[in-house]
Amino acid sequence: MAETNPLKRVCVVGSGNWGSAIAKIVGQNVLAHEDVFEPEIFMYVYEEIVNGQKLTEIINSEHENVKYLPDIKLPPNVIAVPDVVKACMNADVLIFVLPHQFVKDTCLKMKSFIKPNPLGISLIKGFILTEGEGIQLVSKVISEILGIETAVLMGANLATEVASEMFCETTIACENDSYKGLLNALFETSYFRCKVIRNVSGVEACGALKNVVGIGAGIVDGLGYGDNTKAAVIRLGLMEMMKFTKVFLGNEDRSVFFESCGIADLVATCHGGRNRLLGEAVVKSMKDIRLLEKEILRGQSFQGPLIAKEIYAYLKENNMLDQFPLLVAVHRICTREVDPRNFIDCLRDHPEHM
Amino acid sequence: MAETNPLKRVCVVGSGNWGSAIAKIVGQNVLAHEDVFEPEIFMYVYEEIVNGQKLTEIINSEHENVKYLPDIKLPPNVIAVPDVVKACMNADVLIFVLPHQFVKDTCLKMKSFIKPNPLGISLIKGFILTEGEGIQLVSKVISEILGIETAVLMGANLATEVASEMFCETTIACENDSYKGLLNALFETSYFRCKVIRNVSGVEACGALKNVVGIGAGIVDGLGYGDNTKAAVIRLGLMEMMKFTKVFLGNEDRSVFFESCGIADLVATCHGGRNRLLGEAVVKSMKDIRLLEKEILRGQSFQGPLIAKEIYAYLKENNMLDQFPLLVAVHRICTREVDPRNFIDCLRDHPEHM
Repeated sequence: MAETNPLKRVCVVGSGNWGSAIAKIVGQNVLAHEDVFEPEIFMYVYEEIVNGQKLTEIINSEHENVKYLPDIKLPPNVIAVPDVVKACMNADVLIFVLPHQFVKDTCLKMKSFIKPNPLGISLIKGFILTEGEGIQLVSKVISEILGIETAVLMGANLATEVASEMFCETTIACENDSYKGLLNALFETSYFRCKVIRNVSGVEACGALKNVVGIGAGIVDGLGYGDNTKAAVIRLGLMEMMKFTKVFLGNEDRSVFFESCGIADLVATCHGGRNRLLGEAVVKSMKDIRLLEKEILRGQSFQGPLIAKEIYAYLKENNMLDQFPLLVAVHRICTREVDPRNFIDCLRDHPEHM
Repeated sequence: MAETNPLKRVCVVGSGNWGSAIAKIVGQNVLAHEDVFEPEIFMYVYEEIVNGQKLTEIINSEHENVKYLPDIKLPPNVIAVPDVVKACMNADVLIFVLPHQFVKDTCLKMKSFIKPNPLGISLIKGFILTEGEGIQLVSKVISEILGIETAVLMGANLATEVASEMFCETTIACENDSYKGLLNALFETSYFRCKVIRNVSGVEACGALKNVVGIGAGIVDGLGYGDNTKAAVIRLGLMEMMKFTKVFLGNEDRSVFFESCGIADLVATCHGGRNRLLGEAVVKSMKDIRLLEKEILRGQSFQGPLIAKEIYAYLKENNMLDQFPLLVAVHRICTREVDPRNFIDCLRDHPEHM
């Protein structure tokens, strides 16, 4: 029996604040489904020294990621592992939650060591820009390097609030319906409601693009505008997200924008996300983005400016800059080509008003 | 020439904060389009005594609605008129911006005195409940009583921010395309961007329903939840708005929800609207809604609880309460049948999660 239907091992690849928050949920859920999962899960942690001690050792003794998710207790069955190969080698389920610029190298390291057919789930927001190849979805890069099916999970899920068990929803997309039960068992709780749909590329595009719009929302906050202006930025951003998804992915299914990964995540990001903080800081200080990142996030990174840069390169290559004035303005403000005080002027004659 | 193409007279019926803010825009725009409009506009003001003086007299001498939109100067060509018949009798354009419960009586008063074919434009958020006839759209009630074409204008337009000329968008819906130029001339400015579409009932339903969801957003704020939970309430509210519009109006065109009247207005209302304030107050105090209204709005009214009541009556009559848990919970919390602390429990197994 054990051989024909063995318990599944889960590995979380990444341990920032979102990685740690999701490890808390998954750690609890594998215990609640002991007929499906191994009771221990490994979490790959990029090793660093915190207060003179290794972060993995702190997590494994204190059950808390004191650097990225302080004051939240992780279940003791979440084991921090500093070697990504050791963490992933026996896993049947690989949950990816790293900054998007590290995905490729991490997958290349894992490639020769994973089991034949694990399920991948990407929680990563961003696109991957490869010289000469344009931009690609993170889930596709994972699938291609590792040769595995890759689902995605995106939603209005600010990490610290999820970790505090405040009610929210999320969207999971998987093209293979047979994983639906497994995905629900891994992620759903009474405070974290999951809806499983099939549109992987649409969900993933939402997750990447909303970070750029979030910077725009921060810019209007920094400029002192009110809720009307912010709502206009959110709506125009959403329209550009839909258009980009159509042009870039050939995906015209608008229903995905009504899921948690769509407008809900966009609204949460534009009010409480870290990229919003950056947008506000960009207006209030003339400091360079990298410096603001260091000051505000103390080690975490803003994904928004990098995604904006990737999108800009794609749009420029395809002569479509004028069709996406918001996404373009955010990039140019981040690079200091445009003064943030001109943000509204960039939007005033938006194609959506015509 | 003057006889074949006379200048059009505009009347604003109503003078609360939104009425006064739109009178400011329209007052400026009629002067900017002197080839189309008479240079003076009448604004019907419900007469009351403010600091020992008639409100109409204050407005006409100080050009400021000191009670409902203080600190904002109105153009001197906006003339306050205390008699609705005198205000409307020569008008070619009637802009309705009253609390929805006063629409019927006001139209009945105007009925015998208006010109043959003025254009009506409703800025009123709400439904009209008539004993035995169920609920009706405000624009339909105006059209039926006065026998006129009625357009609607709804968007992410918190009145004080519009009056302060902060950039925003709005949606105008009119079934007759020939009015498009007139509508743009009346309302569009560099800070108030108008998009004219045709779906009158869809736009109007958005304007009414968002006030109920706004109370829900205030409830989660009052309960101390964060941006994730609020985003979930906004999304679930939006899904119920779409479903209600489909069931109640047979309107399945989802594109209207991507306009300013849709998600943008919903987001602005859920963050900065007066019904959000009420939702928060309902959690923090056990006082009756009417008392909270007096304390918070000093004379203006919350439209949300009344709309929630009307919707509840309609849903109950049609055995659909279980399909709209958010709209129903807001009503029951406003009437104190349900403790606001149970709001999330009402949503946890929402049909949208299934």
